[in-house]
This record gives sequence, C-alpha cells and structure tokens, in this order.
Amino acid sequence: MDIVTPFQFSLVYNAFSFTFAAMAAATAFLWLSRSQVAPAYRTAVTISGLVTAIAAYHYFRIFESWNAAYVLKGGVITATGFAFNDAYRYVDWLLTVPLLLIELVLVMRLSPEQTSSKTVRLGFAAALMIVLGYPGEIAIDIPTRALWGTLSSIPFVYIVWELFRGLGESIEQQPAAARDLVRRARLLTFASWGFYPIVYMAPYAGLTGANVTTVIQLGYTIADIVAKAGVGVLIFMISSRKSQAEGHVAGVHAA
Amino acid sequence: MDIVTPFQFSLVYNAFSFTFAAMAAATAFLWLSRSQVAPAYRTAVTISGLVTAIAAYHYFRIFESWNAAYVLKGGVITATGFAFNDAYRYVDWLLTVPLLLIELVLVMRLSPEQTSSKTVRLGFAAALMIVLGYPGEIAIDIPTRALWGTLSSIPFVYIVWELFRGLGESIEQQPAAARDLVRRARLLTFASWGFYPIVYMAPYAGLTGANVTTVIQLGYTIADIVAKAGVGVLIFMISSRKSQAEGHVAGVHAA
Repeated sequence: MDIVTPFQFSLVYNAFSFTFAAMAAATAFLWLSRSQVAPAYRTAVTISGLVTAIAAYHYFRIFESWNAAYVLKGGVITATGFAFNDAYRYVDWLLTVPLLLIELVLVMRLSPEQTSSKTVRLGFAAALMIVLGYPGEIAIDIPTRALWGTLSSIPFVYIVWELFRGLGESIEQQPAAARDLVRRARLLTFASWGFYPIVYMAPYAGLTGANVTTVIQLGYTIADIVAKAGVGVLIFMISSRKSQAEGHVAGVHAA
Repeated sequence: MDIVTPFQFSLVYNAFSFTFAAMAAATAFLWLSRSQVAPAYRTAVTISGLVTAIAAYHYFRIFESWNAAYVLKGGVITATGFAFNDAYRYVDWLLTVPLLLIELVLVMRLSPEQTSSKTVRLGFAAALMIVLGYPGEIAIDIPTRALWGTLSSIPFVYIVWELFRGLGESIEQQPAAARDLVRRARLLTFASWGFYPIVYMAPYAGLTGANVTTVIQLGYTIADIVAKAGVGVLIFMISSRKSQAEGHVAGVHAA
C-alpha cells in the first residue's frame, strides 16, 4: 500500500472524523424533528435520518480502518500492513443510494402506485450502478477502471433522466411554497452525484500512489456530506413547508 | 480451521458489516415508524424491530469473531487459532424465528384465541426446527449433518403447512388493500426460509474447506436480510395499509 505523507494522513484522518460527526448530528436532527412535520412526510424524514445514520456508522469504521493501516509516530508515517478497507464506501452506497432516491420520491407525495413503481425502478437502478462501479474501483489498471465506470454510468444516466423527465410533471403539482425547494433538492442530488464519477476518474488524470488515495478519499467524503446530510436537511425543509401549506400545525394533534 | 483466501475473507467481512448496518437501520425505521400505524398493529411492528435488533447484535458479534479468527496483513491471511463462533447464528434464530412467526400472525389481527393458539404452536415448531438443525451444522461428517437436517425439516414442513393451509382462510378476511401484501409477506417468509436448508446442504454438493465456509456465511447472510429486514418492512407496510383501511389517521390520537 502506498505510503501517504504525514500531512495527507492527518488530512484524511480529520476529514473522516469530521464526517462521522456531521452524519451523526444530521441523524439526530432529522429524527428529533420528524414529529414536527405532517404524518404524510414522516417516512421521508425518517429515511433521510437512516441514510445519515448508516453513513455515520461507515465513517466510524473507515476512520478506524485508516488508523489501523498507518502509524504516525515521531513525525514519521509507517504502513502497518493492515489493508485500508475502502469497500466500506460501496457497502454504504449499496444501502444508502436507493434510500436517498426513496426519500426524494416520498417527499413529493405521489399516488401510491406512482410511489411504489418509481421507488422500485430507481432503487434497482441505484443498486446496479453501485455494484457495477466496484470492480473498477479496486482495479489496478486504468482500462479496467474505465470499463466498469462506463457500465456503471448507464444506470446513472437512467436515474438522472427519471429525476428530470419522469419527476418533472410531479414537481409542477407541488405546492408553490415548496416547489423551488423540491427543485433545489433534485439539483443538489444531481450535482453531488455527478461529483462521484469525477472523483472516480482521478486516476485517469495521471494522479498516482498516495496522491490519488488522498484525492479519492477527500472527494468522496465531500460528495457524501452534500448528498446525504445536505439533501436530508432539504427533505426536512420541504416536508415542513408542505405540512404548513396543507394546514398542518406542528405539535397539534388534528388533521 | 480452514484458511480462507484474502478475497474470501474480505467478502465475508464486508457482508457481515453490511448486514449489521442493514439490520440496525431496519430497527430504527421500524421503531420510529410504529407510531404511524393504528394501536392494534403496533405490537407487530415493535416485534419486527426486535427481530432486526437481535440480528444486528449477532452480526456485530459474528463480525468480531470473524475478525478474531483471521489476520489479513501484508496481503496474507493467517489463522489466529481462535475459533470462529458460528453458534451465534443458531442463538439468534432461536430468538428471532419464533418472533418472526409471531409478527406474521399479529399483523393478521385474528381473534385473541386464534392468535394465542397459532403463536404458541408456530413458535414451538420454530424453536424445535432450530434446535434440531444445530447438531448437524457442527457435525464433521455428511451423514450426521443429513440426519439432523432431515429431523429439522419435520417442524419446517409443519410450519409451511400451517402458514399456507391454516392461515389461508384468514388471508381471505384481510381488507382488500392489504390482502396482496399479506400474501407477499407469507411468500417472502416461505422463500427466504426455504433458502436456509439449501445453504445447509452446501457440503452435500461436494464443497469443502474454505469454499464451503464462504458459501455458508454468505448464503445465511442473504437469507437473514430478506427474512428479517425485508419481511419487517412488509409488516410495516401491511400495518400501515390496514390502519388506513380501518379509518386510522396517522398521528391523530383517537380511534
């Protein structure tokens, strides 16, 4: 395994710790606030918290794994021989990416038929995208990485099409107060998800060794914070606006 | 103990971590969502969450045990001599399998007499099935494994009969909105439970050593996710549909 510099080691170490704290805090916020939105939106807010909770668990584990792979002592880095388990990211995404799409569909409150058909299709495409990406992530040569990356982008393009085309009409039917926020949640999902393939392609740009390890770890970490904690908070705000627009008064038990 | 390859070690390691996260997330979802269903269905949802919580605990333990049995350092696997404690699975099943049948009976909301007679009979058969399976699981030779496996399949057949014959009429009395979901929960229970004996029989197929260890661990893990988290989410969906069909408005304290 490539030896990172003491600076790179500390940067990634602190980024993982930061992200654990951010994800755990987002989870507490979402679960504590779910009772403030109308019952129809509670599942969306619950699931947003599940996504950040699952991510918090994996950032805790990935932090431990990073710490087991290197020792920084007396200003000198040594590799311990224990592998850094990058697979935690893919395991995390396999669970959280379908859930992220489900929270986005649920907050729109479509008909039960549309909700279940869209969640099934989007969830399946998301899982396929992750599974196809992994062989490329662990590949040593760039052509293999590019092959799997390209295959993985097919379901990604389908998801983007579904979000912008398929959900487009539904956005027009959202209450005026929430419409812009729903558009922003969709855009933030698209922008943060579009950041992952850019990070994935870092080795194509000629980066190697410890530099590519550092760029990939920091890049995925930033994308995860935006896509999970950022989108989660937007889902709560949309739920809250829509609850008000539909006459729900937080904390009052009546319809 | 047979030495797994580094790939097999990582595959099982990540599968255990994934399953811990999935079970813990399912528990959080079920327990947070129980207030959204009518009081009559809350016990079914609570118990569904108990099942995934117990499984999360055991996957945490089994992950630790797997990690204690092998060391992967510098790309090389060494057995530490500490045994991998497979008994966690049977201890888990002894608790969760009767509870799984109870959640399925409770969500159907039969008469109190039917509910208690069915839960006692199904719970007892489920415990017997697990207890009879264990001596075969730890047996070294195939005839002993086959003997206990066959004995264990007697209560299994009884459970299947009870689910399809005995609960058949009760399904017809479910509200139309929930009937298909109840059928699907029963089918998912049957299909996932039918997967365990197939995994159990892996050594009959001539698989040996580290290969059989890997296949058994992954097979049981997949079956557990479907049978516990998958069925649990279905139980919540059934509870939610039936609550609506019976005029319950989520979040409103009346009825």
